[in-house]
Amino acid sequence: MEKRTKFLLDEKDIPRSWYNIQADLPEPLPPVLHPGTGKPVTGDDLTPLFPMELIKQEVSQERWIEIPEEVRDIYRLWRPSPLFRAYRLEKALDTPAKIFYKYEGISPAGSHKPNTAIAQAYYNKKEGIKRIATETGAGQWGSSLALAGAFFGIEIKVYMVASSYHLKPYRRIMMQTWGAQCVPSPSPDTKAGRAMLEKDPDCPGSLGLAISEAVEDTVTHDDTHYSLGSVLNHVLLHQTVIGLEAKKQMEMAGEYPDIIVGCVGGGSNFAGMFLPFIKDKIEGKKPKLRIINVEPTATPSITKGIYAYDFGDSAKLTPLIKMYTLGHSFMPDPIHAGGLRYHGMAPIICHLHQLGLVEAKAEHQIGTFKAGVTFARSEGIVSAPETNHAIKVAIDEALKCKETGQSKNILLAHSGHGHFDMASYEAYLSGKLVDYAYPKEKIQEALKDLPKIKES
Amino acid sequence: MEKRTKFLLDEKDIPRSWYNIQADLPEPLPPVLHPGTGKPVTGDDLTPLFPMELIKQEVSQERWIEIPEEVRDIYRLWRPSPLFRAYRLEKALDTPAKIFYKYEGISPAGSHKPNTAIAQAYYNKKEGIKRIATETGAGQWGSSLALAGAFFGIEIKVYMVASSYHLKPYRRIMMQTWGAQCVPSPSPDTKAGRAMLEKDPDCPGSLGLAISEAVEDTVTHDDTHYSLGSVLNHVLLHQTVIGLEAKKQMEMAGEYPDIIVGCVGGGSNFAGMFLPFIKDKIEGKKPKLRIINVEPTATPSITKGIYAYDFGDSAKLTPLIKMYTLGHSFMPDPIHAGGLRYHGMAPIICHLHQLGLVEAKAEHQIGTFKAGVTFARSEGIVSAPETNHAIKVAIDEALKCKETGQSKNILLAHSGHGHFDMASYEAYLSGKLVDYAYPKEKIQEALKDLPKIKES
Repeated sequence: MEKRTKFLLDEKDIPRSWYNIQADLPEPLPPVLHPGTGKPVTGDDLTPLFPMELIKQEVSQERWIEIPEEVRDIYRLWRPSPLFRAYRLEKALDTPAKIFYKYEGISPAGSHKPNTAIAQAYYNKKEGIKRIATETGAGQWGSSLALAGAFFGIEIKVYMVASSYHLKPYRRIMMQTWGAQCVPSPSPDTKAGRAMLEKDPDCPGSLGLAISEAVEDTVTHDDTHYSLGSVLNHVLLHQTVIGLEAKKQMEMAGEYPDIIVGCVGGGSNFAGMFLPFIKDKIEGKKPKLRIINVEPTATPSITKGIYAYDFGDSAKLTPLIKMYTLGHSFMPDPIHAGGLRYHGMAPIICHLHQLGLVEAKAEHQIGTFKAGVTFARSEGIVSAPETNHAIKVAIDEALKCKETGQSKNILLAHSGHGHFDMASYEAYLSGKLVDYAYPKEKIQEALKDLPKIKES
Repeated sequence: MEKRTKFLLDEKDIPRSWYNIQADLPEPLPPVLHPGTGKPVTGDDLTPLFPMELIKQEVSQERWIEIPEEVRDIYRLWRPSPLFRAYRLEKALDTPAKIFYKYEGISPAGSHKPNTAIAQAYYNKKEGIKRIATETGAGQWGSSLALAGAFFGIEIKVYMVASSYHLKPYRRIMMQTWGAQCVPSPSPDTKAGRAMLEKDPDCPGSLGLAISEAVEDTVTHDDTHYSLGSVLNHVLLHQTVIGLEAKKQMEMAGEYPDIIVGCVGGGSNFAGMFLPFIKDKIEGKKPKLRIINVEPTATPSITKGIYAYDFGDSAKLTPLIKMYTLGHSFMPDPIHAGGLRYHGMAPIICHLHQLGLVEAKAEHQIGTFKAGVTFARSEGIVSAPETNHAIKVAIDEALKCKETGQSKNILLAHSGHGHFDMASYEAYLSGKLVDYAYPKEKIQEALKDLPKIKES
């Protein structure tokens, strides 16, 4: 039999349903709370922001949720994504481990984000929504929603953190190429933006402020909804196409992973990969399966934060979410993995961590770029700085196998390419990168600011 | 049967041989001449620059040339590339035409260039070469050779036209990520570079000068060869993997193209696509097959140049090639399709044009970007400015079908993505692009400078 480097599935193998972990959790997720009443939020609380189908998915206990044909039809443009056996990386590391990676960088936007952007745009379109407002940091999410807007004829308005808007113009131009409007936040287009600009015309912006602007835009415009690219249950749900495909592809390879590793910012890409596998662990079929969430030492929400109810944004506009948090007033150091600079974490991942079903690890950025360069020179792909976090741990685990002589199967969730992040590689290659660790005192400080909630 | 958007082949379907059109030409190619003697060059003339296997391939009359297993093994990282049916573009145009596109943008470097870079690096490695020098304009070729160098452990030195080096730093950083050395040309590393820097320290450079530097570097270093990314017969040969795969994929779709369209700078990508199909036309099986070479109005070598012997570079270092040329002293206007700014054209394409087997068309850049945006908003992919030239003509042909009601099959050679060309999209979207047409008088002027050769 000929050697196989990639395991490809046919279009007909694009999953027909998303997998909803809520049906299989040993204990249910803690409810999301209304910040005013401290009681669980209702569907009605959320209808100004989201279409009803997504609100239902957020709390559904159904194991399988059908993927609409119109969504599958667009998934066909790049899905199923390939699963690679990293022969060349294994050889470079001289490891007995087998390394596999599932590559989401082949989507038109270059990452996993369109998996949910397409679904969210579809449900909004179906509900007659003509316009969606959102925020974006480095631009991965904004560009994916812009793509989805082009496909469904929905107007997209993106509030992009001003510092990124000016420093990373390529992502902004990509959004415009797909027809979206993208403005730097703070912008003169909202009350929140104008107030900030009056105080500081050169304000570099923050994700918290950009969220405030997008939410204000939503509630002050007709036919407009708001959209989020990570953290929420329905976003993780849509990303399970990754893991469902990967399970089939690992079967094609005749293997099952011993270790699954991925990077986590809000957590949607990695959860999309591991949720279909963790079912086997919950059911006792794969008790030894290790699932490693990798976060930056600069935003160590799982490894250094606390598990508590907190706001999803710094402006305290969102409901309260039980999650690992560094405090909603958290201000990240300027690490290059823009997609990992979030103070909280997807509640599903946090809950699974509490249950002892997944583990977490924090990595310094210089080490992750070194790993990324090793990957680029052996497998070819220049990876996103976020993905490099996962690559670092995959390489470390493979090197442990070299020490012990064990041949483990390592499955890497590769979230996307780094074509828009070359300035970060330059900083690394020229020795200008700095490592950051979020100090304990700051976490202690932030905890004072957590909302006081009596859990029922 | 389920609708199919992509036609995928398995790794075992990566071609085992390249197709050599020289075996099937109705008339042989005119020989390449030595500029000193006016006589055909010999293999010995070329050994300081190229490995013997490539020199043999340049003149081989064998129909099939085996692809070494080591080369196929690396092709596996992205090949076979997908062939798409552009349903969404067809719908956007409301055309009865069926549009297919073969997408080379999934290679790690983002274009078709690695197809030959890998092969060239392999043959050099086999001959004990430890270092390769080359030039690059916009950076597509330089980055592809850098990738190949990483795979085979060959040191790569790239002389990048200084204006591009400073304006498009991302391509340069990509080369460095893969371990190559990239310097702006003119550089202090060669006599030619130093001479120019003395005259003009701010010289923006030119492809002609970068070639001079790379060739000088080659002949003044041990274990060093020179490498070219287009024009030459062996480069087109390596690119035939594109057309060989596409033929199989069109069979999967149950169709044969009526029109094949692609962009041409040196011509290697498009020839790689159409050569395996043109065999059917030469043999009389598909007499009506149309093959359209699309070039910019700013560098209209086939549509406005003359068919004559000329140098391949402005510094007159290369042998003399019979081709359509605008004159080797041609200075291109600053159009954004950097890969199409060449004064000449692959001799194979020129010969086929002389024989009436292919046609050519020139397009203004603003129209090509408009076509590229239509493509991005329907098919998702943001294409390279070069590729947009082909998309423009594919769309025009599809719109003609709409007028006539005919349903033709249009096959588009999609050479790569535009992730490193977003500044060009910004220029288009903000209305700052200008159209250029190369004036007749300049061509008349350049013709005076053509070498005087008595053809035997």
